Order: sequence, then structure tokens, then C-alpha cells
Amino acid sequence: MAPVTNGRVLFNAIPEDYPVPGKTVVYDTTETIDFENVPLNGGILIKVLLLSLDPYMRGRLRAPEIESYMPAFPLGEPLTGGGIGVVLRSENDAVKAGTHVRGWLAHQQYYIAPNLSMLEVIDRDSKLDWSVYIGAAGMPGETAFAGWREYSEAKKGEVAFITTGAGPVGSMVIQIAKQDGVKVIASAGSEEKVKFMREIGADVVFNYKTTDVREVLKKEGPIDIYWDNVGGDTLDAAMEFAAKHSRFIECGQISGYNQGYQPMKNPGLIFAKCMHFHGFLLAVLRPKHSAAFQAEVVPKLVSGEYKFTEDISHGLDKVGDVLLAIQKGTNKGKAIVRVADE
Amino acid sequence: MAPVTNGRVLFNAIPEDYPVPGKTVVYDTTETIDFENVPLNGGILIKVLLLSLDPYMRGRLRAPEIESYMPAFPLGEPLTGGGIGVVLRSENDAVKAGTHVRGWLAHQQYYIAPNLSMLEVIDRDSKLDWSVYIGAAGMPGETAFAGWREYSEAKKGEVAFITTGAGPVGSMVIQIAKQDGVKVIASAGSEEKVKFMREIGADVVFNYKTTDVREVLKKEGPIDIYWDNVGGDTLDAAMEFAAKHSRFIECGQISGYNQGYQPMKNPGLIFAKCMHFHGFLLAVLRPKHSAAFQAEVVPKLVSGEYKFTEDISHGLDKVGDVLLAIQKGTNKGKAIVRVADE
Repeated sequence: MAPVTNGRVLFNAIPEDYPVPGKTVVYDTTETIDFENVPLNGGILIKVLLLSLDPYMRGRLRAPEIESYMPAFPLGEPLTGGGIGVVLRSENDAVKAGTHVRGWLAHQQYYIAPNLSMLEVIDRDSKLDWSVYIGAAGMPGETAFAGWREYSEAKKGEVAFITTGAGPVGSMVIQIAKQDGVKVIASAGSEEKVKFMREIGADVVFNYKTTDVREVLKKEGPIDIYWDNVGGDTLDAAMEFAAKHSRFIECGQISGYNQGYQPMKNPGLIFAKCMHFHGFLLAVLRPKHSAAFQAEVVPKLVSGEYKFTEDISHGLDKVGDVLLAIQKGTNKGKAIVRVADE
Repeated sequence: MAPVTNGRVLFNAIPEDYPVPGKTVVYDTTETIDFENVPLNGGILIKVLLLSLDPYMRGRLRAPEIESYMPAFPLGEPLTGGGIGVVLRSENDAVKAGTHVRGWLAHQQYYIAPNLSMLEVIDRDSKLDWSVYIGAAGMPGETAFAGWREYSEAKKGEVAFITTGAGPVGSMVIQIAKQDGVKVIASAGSEEKVKFMREIGADVVFNYKTTDVREVLKKEGPIDIYWDNVGGDTLDAAMEFAAKHSRFIECGQISGYNQGYQPMKNPGLIFAKCMHFHGFLLAVLRPKHSAAFQAEVVPKLVSGEYKFTEDISHGLDKVGDVLLAIQKGTNKGKAIVRVADE
């Protein structure tokens, strides 16, 4: 078989604020790959099927000399991120051709993984598409579950405020929180998202672009639990209307990713209200909570009790557009790029 | 016996920034009291011996319409705070004349407590003065112990940065932390205080007025535990040099008490570094940790293994000066006002 094109998404230019489609990353088709003869050196040749596009990736589109919790993407190299692929060839005894793997993949059509250290063999329930396994049944769902279980200390009747409540993490937090008997206030940035948050059980929903968060919290708070995906002024407002002994779960602060973090207005409230803040990364919590997630959450996705939305773009050349959409919040569900059908 | 003067410290004027001696509070001698005949209505007549003056009191010298974790002092009324007194008369069966009590007292020479709800009967070790029981063996010592035990998650070899390390709380934190095998970096605002911090075992000590905190933390960090008594730019610096999964114990932020809280520069670090912040008040943690404090800490104060400093002023008329001193940090140890000898 002749070599075929191996399309790749390369990091091309460090964005000044928001990622710029066609500039920040570029889709490159200059490489080819010969499936049968490409040397694997003990590794695994994977056909990439689905890629997860997530807000945190903005932090990797930076200059390498700036330190952060994840390394910068190297300029000129393919992006990397979560995804699902199918094995075409394998020189690793633990996995054979035809198997599906989930984990860390390069943003290219075909990828040779040196080993399984960043991948896991995965099967799916026949009622769920593979895409769900990088969304509600994957990293975002596990993030919601592990963060909530580890840090919410939720007690029945308490009040939680969940930001980006229609997103892949926030929407799962809402549904898990409701199981704990918590009153849920949830915010998002469009009427369609507000409608979805209501459908999945949030008690108080609002569009933060048209409704003043302080008015809502004044009426519906004080809040015992705050799930932060946004930071900035919303975090300040949440602190103002926080109850004593409240828990603030710091999952992300997208308001700061593109134009810099806004300062926290009144850090004195942390001690004055005996507040607790918990930053976390899923990788650290996953070993502790993964089994419970499989047992408690995935069956509810299969049965349809837990709901989710997906926004699937087709083709690796769409990555640049999707990177911007998830920073602007214009995507309408878990942002996924379908690279290929099986 | 004829009535005697009952000197009182009255809240006279809300300070604009720092408390002003002679203005913020005034010493008033217009009231008298007749020990034998004053009606107790089931209460307890107490001769106030010692009063604890603490940084948090600044927060109570405010307008009543501003909400906070403790009520504002009412204008024209005596201050209240921690202290020790001896019972002169009692109509409460649980306590009799001659007994010492510790707890919430008015800033006046003689005080009628309606009941024991805010007071506890207390005895002392013959090797410790009563004053120690409102300092190292009292609220500040318990604050250090309970906060550290509850939230530090200290592991041997970790690095802790402790602010106001020569103060009544910070100096106890240093000594408790050293027992846990932690490397202690400690800061204070004078050479005398720096010397004391070295004497009590801090590994790295510095005067924050003459040494750049970032230089110290860059060399001696990153820090796993931060004990915050100051907030402001020092908190920002601690966050910059915080290790992943660090614990920030928010005991107070004196930099904000008099001139307003400075914003936290980069709240995004909380999730990026998986940091944990814990605000707390002793009243909440005390039931859990008080017995261990008595068993583990007080004997070390009696034996002299744990050291402390006191700065005792004589006479209720000094309260106004001491209130300013503890905000400026010019006191040289636990600030105490000796109201009377026994």
C-alpha cells in the first residue's frame, strides 16, 4: 500500500489573547505515513478517531519559558490532548490491532504511541457512542465527579452555585449535586444553555450575560459550595455571597485564560468566612474516584438518567476554529473533533 | 463599703485607618460600683485581672451596618474581649468567690457576667503566670495548634512559611511545625523578633522590612504550607513560590485590617497549582483540638521547651495605645493589659 497523507495540527503562533483560527494552529498535510512499513520500535500505530478539545488547552498555547502546571505546546509540533483511536498495528503485547484506546494522542490522523503509559484500552457500552467516552463518560465527567466527591462535602439542603453549567464538566456537576439533595444555582452564557441546565435539574438557572449574578445570589444564596470554571468577577461575587464554611472548588478560571487573570477583590473573606478553596487536577484524584465513577455515573449515562450535549466538528482542519469556540463559549456541547470514522 | 470607681474602655470613634489613641477608645472613670450591694440577678461579679489585646479586634472597631464575622463594637459601650478575672461574688452555683475565670470579659475593672456561657473556670500550673493562659496557653496558642493540626497536613521534610513568626500565634506555629519535622521559613518586622524566631527553632528567618520575601522564597522554597497572618503582597509572593498541592492556612491578614484588603494578584494559581486555602476561626475548631492542646502543648510551656514572649501594659487606660501597637507591630510579645493585681 502506498503511503497516505498524515494530516497534523501544528502549533504555529503564540496567541496574544484569543486563539486565531488559521494562525495559532495550522493544519498541515505535508507528511505521509506507510501503515505497513513504518517502524514502530515496540510501539503502537493508532488511527485517531476522536479528539477532545478543552478550555485548559489555551494554557498550553504559550511561550515555553513561562512555567505552568502543564508544559507549553512546542511551536511547530502537533498539539496533543485527550482522544480515542483504534489500533492499526501493535508491537506491544498488551494491545492488538482492532482494539480501541483512550488517552493522550497527538492531533494527527495517525499516531505512533511508544507505549501504553498515557493510554488505556477501552470498551464501550453499545448504547453510548465512542464520543461519550471523552465527554460525559470521560475526562470532563470524571473531573466533575472526582472534584465534587473529594471537596464539596455536600449536605442535603445546602446551596451550590455551578458556573458553566451547560458545559461538559458543569452539566455533570449539576446532575451529581442534585443526587446529593443540594439546591443548585447554575449559570451559562446563552438561552439555549440555560434551557439545558433547567432540563437536567438545576433549581435556579440564569444567563450571566443578561442577568446580574449578584442579584441572583442575593436572592437565592448564600452559597455553601461554589464550582468555579470561570474565575474573575463571578468568583468575587460568589465570595461576597458565600456562607460561612463554604467550599470553593477551583476547577478552572476561563475568564483569565485569554486576557490574563483578574485579581481576587477581597481575599480577606477567606478567613473572615472560614472559607475553603480547593484547586485540583483530575490526574491526581482519578485513582481514588475512578472505580466509583464507573459504578455510579456511567450506568446513569447508559440509562439516559444523566444527560449530556455534544458539539462534534468533522475533520482535523477544524481544530483551530474549535479552540476559539471553547474559549468564547460558542460551542453547544462537549467540543469534539471527529478525525475519522472507523 | 462605699462604691468604688469602675473604670471602663469605651468605643468612642470609628477609626478611618489605624486606631488613634485617645480617640478611637477612651478610658472612662465616671461609673462606680458597690461590690456588696450591686444586684447580680443570678450572675457573677468579676474583678478583671488581665485582658488579651489581639489584632482581630480592629475588625470590630467599625460601623455596625458593615457585616463581618464578629459584631461591631457598639459606640459608647465598653470593648469586650478575652481575659482572665477572679470572682468576687457569685449567684451561680457553678462558680464561687475566689475562683478564676477565663473567657469573654468587658474592658472594665469590674464586670457582671450574666452566666458562664462565655466563661470557663480555670486553674493554672504554679510555674506559669495567669497571663500565659491568655497567650501561649490560651487563645493564640490554641489557634496555632488547632489550625496547624487541622489543615497543615504536614509531612516530614516539607517546607512551611510562617508569617508574624514572633507573634503569639506565629511563634507557637513555628514550634509546633518543628515538632512535625518541617523546614520553617519565618518572617517578622524587627531584628529582635528575627532573633526570637531563630531561638525557637525556625530554620530560615528574615525581617520583611529589610529583606525581599521573594528572594527568600526563591532560594528556600517552594513552600508546601503557608501560615497567613498578613495577607497582601506577602500572600501573593507565597502563592508565586507555592508548591503544587500546597496548603494555605488563612488565620488573618493584618495588612488589610486598617487600610483595606489588597486584591490577590493571581487567583488562577489556586487551580493551576492545586492549592488548598483554609480560613478558620478557633471557636469552630476548638472542641476538636482542645484536649490535645492541653495534653501536648501546655506541658511543654510548663517545662520551658516551648518559649513565648509577652508585652504587658499596666492599666486599663493603656488599651488605646496597645490597640494601635498591635496593628503597627510595635509590641514585643503577646499584648496583654494587666488591669489589676489580685
